[in-house]
Amino acid sequence: MNYRIEKDTLGEVKVPADKLWGAQTERSLNNFKIGKPASMPLEIIYGFAYLKKGAAYANHELGVLPEEKRDLIAQVCDEILEGKHDDQFPLVIWQTGSGTQSNMNVNEVVANRAHQIAGHEIGKGDLTLQPNDDVNKSQSSNDTFPTGMHIACYKKVVEVTLPDLKQLQKSLARKAREMEDVVKIGRTHLMDATPLTLGQEFSGYAAQLEYGIRAVENTLPHLSELALGGTAVGTGLNTPKNYDTTVAKYIAEFTGLPFVTAPNKFEALAAHDALVETHGALKQVAVAINKIANDIRLL
Amino acid sequence: MNYRIEKDTLGEVKVPADKLWGAQTERSLNNFKIGKPASMPLEIIYGFAYLKKGAAYANHELGVLPEEKRDLIAQVCDEILEGKHDDQFPLVIWQTGSGTQSNMNVNEVVANRAHQIAGHEIGKGDLTLQPNDDVNKSQSSNDTFPTGMHIACYKKVVEVTLPDLKQLQKSLARKAREMEDVVKIGRTHLMDATPLTLGQEFSGYAAQLEYGIRAVENTLPHLSELALGGTAVGTGLNTPKNYDTTVAKYIAEFTGLPFVTAPNKFEALAAHDALVETHGALKQVAVAINKIANDIRLL
Amino acid sequence: MNYRIEKDTLGEVKVPADKLWGAQTERSLNNFKIGKPASMPLEIIYGFAYLKKGAAYANHELGVLPEEKRDLIAQVCDEILEGKHDDQFPLVIWQTGSGTQSNMNVNEVVANRAHQIAGHEIGKGDLTLQPNDDVNKSQSSNDTFPTGMHIACYKKVVEVTLPDLKQLQKSLARKAREMEDVVKIGRTHLMDATPLTLGQEFSGYAAQLEYGIRAVENTLPHLSELALGGTAVGTGLNTPKNYDTTVAKYIAEFTGLPFVTAPNKFEALAAHDALVETHGALKQVAVAINKIANDIRLL
Amino acid sequence: MNYRIEKDTLGEVKVPADKLWGAQTERSLNNFKIGKPASMPLEIIYGFAYLKKGAAYANHELGVLPEEKRDLIAQVCDEILEGKHDDQFPLVIWQTGSGTQSNMNVNEVVANRAHQIAGHEIGKGDLTLQPNDDVNKSQSSNDTFPTGMHIACYKKVVEVTLPDLKQLQKSLARKAREMEDVVKIGRTHLMDATPLTLGQEFSGYAAQLEYGIRAVENTLPHLSELALGGTAVGTGLNTPKNYDTTVAKYIAEFTGLPFVTAPNKFEALAAHDALVETHGALKQVAVAINKIANDIRLL
Repeated sequence: MNYRIEKDTLGEVKVPADKLWGAQTERSLNNFKIGKPASMPLEIIYGFAYLKKGAAYANHELGVLPEEKRDLIAQVCDEILEGKHDDQFPLVIWQTGSGTQSNMNVNEVVANRAHQIAGHEIGKGDLTLQPNDDVNKSQSSNDTFPTGMHIACYKKVVEVTLPDLKQLQKSLARKAREMEDVVKIGRTHLMDATPLTLGQEFSGYAAQLEYGIRAVENTLPHLSELALGGTAVGTGLNTPKNYDTTVAKYIAEFTGLPFVTAPNKFEALAAHDALVETHGALKQVAVAINKIANDIRLL
Repeated sequence: MNYRIEKDTLGEVKVPADKLWGAQTERSLNNFKIGKPASMPLEIIYGFAYLKKGAAYANHELGVLPEEKRDLIAQVCDEILEGKHDDQFPLVIWQTGSGTQSNMNVNEVVANRAHQIAGHEIGKGDLTLQPNDDVNKSQSSNDTFPTGMHIACYKKVVEVTLPDLKQLQKSLARKAREMEDVVKIGRTHLMDATPLTLGQEFSGYAAQLEYGIRAVENTLPHLSELALGGTAVGTGLNTPKNYDTTVAKYIAEFTGLPFVTAPNKFEALAAHDALVETHGALKQVAVAINKIANDIRLL
Repeated sequence: MNYRIEKDTLGEVKVPADKLWGAQTERSLNNFKIGKPASMPLEIIYGFAYLKKGAAYANHELGVLPEEKRDLIAQVCDEILEGKHDDQFPLVIWQTGSGTQSNMNVNEVVANRAHQIAGHEIGKGDLTLQPNDDVNKSQSSNDTFPTGMHIACYKKVVEVTLPDLKQLQKSLARKAREMEDVVKIGRTHLMDATPLTLGQEFSGYAAQLEYGIRAVENTLPHLSELALGGTAVGTGLNTPKNYDTTVAKYIAEFTGLPFVTAPNKFEALAAHDALVETHGALKQVAVAINKIANDIRLL
Repeated sequence: MNYRIEKDTLGEVKVPADKLWGAQTERSLNNFKIGKPASMPLEIIYGFAYLKKGAAYANHELGVLPEEKRDLIAQVCDEILEGKHDDQFPLVIWQTGSGTQSNMNVNEVVANRAHQIAGHEIGKGDLTLQPNDDVNKSQSSNDTFPTGMHIACYKKVVEVTLPDLKQLQKSLARKAREMEDVVKIGRTHLMDATPLTLGQEFSGYAAQLEYGIRAVENTLPHLSELALGGTAVGTGLNTPKNYDTTVAKYIAEFTGLPFVTAPNKFEALAAHDALVETHGALKQVAVAINKIANDIRLL
């Protein structure tokens, strides 16, 4: 295999010549050889692509990043979101607590790919974009990672989970109507009790799904809050004024989803309660579907 | 010890003479000698007292229970709610799946105590109230038990958990204000990072509690729905017309809490998703408090 | 209520006059008013009684405790083991990480009760035994608590759990023999498959219990190792030579169980892996019994 | 893509022309389109390869399978074990409770590949081997699947987990010796207590690993017992005399591991207690390593 030499503060690292990532990604790859089943989900990477693009736009609007750099960053982020660079994010989930390595993986890929777009060969000539100073500007892995997680989970929940649950709910409700005259034995403790209709049983299942959908939706406002702008410990050190609301506005625009900046960055950075909240509601749905499946098996 | 003889369809049972319970309670007591640590919580018993009183009022309003019987049932339920009969509910949580034994325990205690109030000795003379036909009228353990659980949990959550959480939230917010100028080292992965104030850290804790309180409150509407009126399998067999809404109205009145009848009794009887939902939110609060406590220990 | 005044380094505390405990127990009781359901199990207290008596004997044999003090400590420990002082251990499980308060509760009760036995009134006159210097001699809550837990669990497992499991295993094996000719439908996924006998099914249950019993027994050697002698951090600071093996010898003698001193005190103090190990085996038994019960319900 | 037509009792199915699997595998693939992350682990497939080869040898030895068929089955199983057909097992773990589909996947691949080896084109001419009557002879998914799981887990535990744990244990023990003179502050509840050496701390870690290794080893005898020979419900219907011990003998020979036939097939088929037992011990190891890692982080 061909390699190029990348450098960081620890010295030189050999990186496969055809890869867009840099020294820090390569080091993490070598330190944690755990393999595919433990990969960082692509949804998180795409969450990063949205936020890097949002950060570039906010930094430009607030006067700390030139337009050409903004557009280069945005162009690479769009390529990532189109799935063109899925194989450039090889890291596993085992990283530092803050996910520094995946944040740097994205920074390195954006910077190197921008260098290519600008007509240069990776590793040759002056850098077109600095991974840290440009791509990661006004950010820290401490606020990008929770932001990436919220974007990834919110998108998945509203674009996949909720539509699928609603379809299942409608199917169960339709079955309930279709079978409203099918009389069967009702059971308590698996023993025959009094009669009811299959439609009545299925109306109960449809109701369970309805409650579950409502419970998941109740958790979305908390999940829509983004940590970005808190930087290292939540104080927003090294960010321009109004950066947090500006970056949230751009992320909302690019995703088409109602993301807002978290009113308290210390909570948003240090706690993952929004994810706990959504998981609680998803667990309710899982318990409901499990009960329904068991009932149908024993009908 | 003195005993009296009680009878049921399985034959005779010896019950301690000074106890208000009857044959079915005594049999359960003998079958599951597990002891105090596994006791049915008194909160559930009180939930039953509210619902038995509510059922008596609804049954009377709908013309299927005479006023004297209604008032006798209500009088004993009020005594139970005053804590006068706490030692008359000796059963453990290990019962049939539907909790038939605790339902019967309440029916027996209400009937026997009513007999005393009416001036008779337990076990002597015609029964003043029939445990099944009067106290349990328009009910089944299948709908009373989930109703009792919802009443017990809703009351505990709104009368104990939420007020305590709000007090804790206020204390943390006050601490945040008091310490807004106390600068300290911020840490990431236990390593020194950039400075912040203790007040900022505590504002994050206060925010966590605020989200947790809102999450618990989001679950209350589902928890306020009562299964009562579904009877054995959810069809409402053997209940007078409008019984479900009428009984929910009385339970709301007696508890002072916004209970309503569940729109779908099949869900309300067969699933416990409302409890799963509330537990999910309580778990979020527990996770938050645990994080806060750990942070303070390592401050 | 009548009170006496106890003192510790934090100042004065009022203790109910008829109680044997002292200042530290009373403070913990006031700080954590959580109530009975969270009580420290009596089994742990009895574990402490064995180890305090063992420590007194070892300290005497190794020349650091006079015979009269040894005998007084032993006499009170025997009273505790006879159940005479069950109401003198009112603390809940919420304590410091090391359980200092329950250790001190035992020290205080032993010292005060010894004072009574010696003919004095509690709180009057020179102390007969010092709670710390005599009763807790050559100990720390860091090594007494894990020792108390091992004694409590080992005793419970070999005196209650294993005999009961063996009885259940025998009953299932007897049923297997009794029903060896009762042919029934075998099922796979609840669907009728090929015939087998009820005896064959029950022989499978009996085998599950047999494996479970063996698994629990496999964990006993680790559970029989006692931390006592490690004191505060495992180095055995402040203990006489050969104290660890001597005290284990006495505990083995007094309990009639094969306790030994842990070969590595740092593991024995800081880890609870022996308990994890036994719990793993108990979980296997629980899973087995749950499966058997579900099978019988669906027979 | 090119397809060939396969048939089963439900009718015709299109299977990609270059794939070795048949109708049942293709149906499962279409019914559960869940994708790679839910794949049946290759370790299980290899477990099946060992048992199919073992069954072919046992069936031949006991006179119910001709030598040519035995050798063809064995040849394909060896190819599978060499990793030559890894992409022929595309199913996910979501199958019937007994894993019928993966069992059939293996049967189909063995039969079709044998057909190729015999010089034929898949789907053309008389079948060289019948998937059910030859490859699955004297078997049922009810006994092959638990057998495959035991082979897979046992191999993984003794060939990967235990050697790695032993290496870690030795490294910790070596560190303990190297640092036996490095004095440090001992801590209780994160507070400074009395001094000890880093070597002493690490000796505790090495001891934890030692106990963990022993705990895992204690579970191996149960895990070494194979269900094969029980067939559908444990009675061994449709197997030749001595089949169970014969097939276990061959599996032991081919794997080089001490597998034996389970003394009670009803337990071996219907319960997974051996896996619960091993997991309990692995959990102890995980808890230990987690504690060690946390300690080192806070050293």
